[in-house]
Amino acid sequence: MILLPPKEDEVEDSEETQELDLGVVGHGPAGLTAALYASRSAISVACIGRDYGGQMGLALEIENYPGFENISGIELTDKMRAQAEKFGTKIIYGEISTIEKTEDNRFFIKSDMGNYLVKALILATGGRHRELDVPGEKEFIGRGVSYCATCDAAFFKEKTVVVVGSGDAAATGTLALSDVGAKKIYWTSRSDYLKCERIYVDRAEERENIEILYNKQITEIKGTNTVEEIIFNDGSTLKADGIFAEIGAIPNTELAEALGCELEDGLIKIDDDCKTSVPGIFAAGDVTSKIRNPLSRQVTTSVGLATVAAINVAEFLQARKTMKKD
Amino acid sequence: MILLPPKEDEVEDSEETQELDLGVVGHGPAGLTAALYASRSAISVACIGRDYGGQMGLALEIENYPGFENISGIELTDKMRAQAEKFGTKIIYGEISTIEKTEDNRFFIKSDMGNYLVKALILATGGRHRELDVPGEKEFIGRGVSYCATCDAAFFKEKTVVVVGSGDAAATGTLALSDVGAKKIYWTSRSDYLKCERIYVDRAEERENIEILYNKQITEIKGTNTVEEIIFNDGSTLKADGIFAEIGAIPNTELAEALGCELEDGLIKIDDDCKTSVPGIFAAGDVTSKIRNPLSRQVTTSVGLATVAAINVAEFLQARKTMKKD
Repeated sequence: MILLPPKEDEVEDSEETQELDLGVVGHGPAGLTAALYASRSAISVACIGRDYGGQMGLALEIENYPGFENISGIELTDKMRAQAEKFGTKIIYGEISTIEKTEDNRFFIKSDMGNYLVKALILATGGRHRELDVPGEKEFIGRGVSYCATCDAAFFKEKTVVVVGSGDAAATGTLALSDVGAKKIYWTSRSDYLKCERIYVDRAEERENIEILYNKQITEIKGTNTVEEIIFNDGSTLKADGIFAEIGAIPNTELAEALGCELEDGLIKIDDDCKTSVPGIFAAGDVTSKIRNPLSRQVTTSVGLATVAAINVAEFLQARKTMKKD
Repeated sequence: MILLPPKEDEVEDSEETQELDLGVVGHGPAGLTAALYASRSAISVACIGRDYGGQMGLALEIENYPGFENISGIELTDKMRAQAEKFGTKIIYGEISTIEKTEDNRFFIKSDMGNYLVKALILATGGRHRELDVPGEKEFIGRGVSYCATCDAAFFKEKTVVVVGSGDAAATGTLALSDVGAKKIYWTSRSDYLKCERIYVDRAEERENIEILYNKQITEIKGTNTVEEIIFNDGSTLKADGIFAEIGAIPNTELAEALGCELEDGLIKIDDDCKTSVPGIFAAGDVTSKIRNPLSRQVTTSVGLATVAAINVAEFLQARKTMKKD
């Protein structure tokens, strides 16, 4: 994960509480787009997050966000952030500890970068990497076990590595490892197919340093100081210096659950207006029940849902104003 | 509407029928994004449309598509088209006369630019301008009555014009007329508020040549050779050289209806996978029941739905292959 240290002058006095219309949680495409749209509707917004760009921020190259033939995740994040800031969004690089509903139906956000009292929330908390859950995994984290090819590929120049997973992240990770000059990359899928976009498979098949292996399920990671060998359930083994687990994301639903938002299959349940089950709380992006198919975890779908969330927040705040003389 | 004439070498022999996996109907952001995603999945695609960029193509400036601080609708269309073509999409500038389901559950598309036989369809047909339906309107089309400020603003330099509508299109149209130096623009809403993004209202209020009038409903357009006077239901009148009706869009559902797709409130009914009621036919963008709130007619929401449609088309074609040995 890429964490940006806060600049000196951005550090808020944690004793002070700022009152705003909307708190957006998350710095991925969903969070930044929700902030952009809300700001343009004259809603005051604090967009709070710790992982700059979210999962998008980890992408070396994005080729399927319409309008950009090829752009890095960080560059696209920079553009989206600047655009939201231009219209008044306050971008806060902070970790949220708790969010609590107040008696007057507002939300009190406590973070290490200040506290915020807001009338509505958009949760765009995305996901974090899923673990393999095999012996040896925890032991060798940072010593051969990685969850982010984009971040760590450069360490594996002229090394042999195993990539686990069949989705787009595994595919782009495999190609990134090939690009940096890994000696050999075994791209393993536990089933007899790859779920990623077809174009990645075509590209991988053309590379001499990539070998695709199907029906391979990891059972153990072995080594002494660093990773040395990968064991599969069919009894086969591969000598390797590293292993990249790119097997999808676990939705970050903790804040939503603590606030009492209903989940559906482990995702924040939202309706067509991006409303959660709790009045005043909306959600967008990969963490929501609208992105049930892992293949739909795309920048495009995130910006679409975020737009709908922001539009409905504007209507919610308008109604609240009328009813309560906010 | 902006119509691009076909290049000589693009004219297809209308007797010949090309067989492809997917036909995408529409050249707006939904159509082009669906084509991009499908092409990247090694699906052969013909993307057929007549209005280049759809409603997006008419926008002078887009500020709320994340990633671009400011871009014209045509420029963004160019980028999206090039991106889809890069991965193999065939862009066809043609008018579709009919689409018929064949006995083997394919779809025969007949157009003035050739015929196409496809296994699946994505309808991204968007909308067209809504008319005022008042006396004098039809009479003065092109002689003061316009439905596209972006297209026609330049003709009204130093003239007095009335803009009708309260959404984003009316707002950006009003500002465009101000930019080209219209003498006076009366921006009229038939209710006591404006539905557009708040930022546009702030900008309009700063301009000396814009006056916003609420609770104004047009009842008649008068003139001799060209528009001269606008009559409202409260009996008031305004002398004006032109009138721009920017009162929303009528969804282009004709092809969907002819194919038997179920509608909902005048929009193509789709589920969360962008499936219509007819197997093999998907839909995305403003023409669908997922964009019920007119404020949600955005580039962001279109690219989001189009992604979902393309992903589900890939799964549909895969299943068809398995079942029918396509």
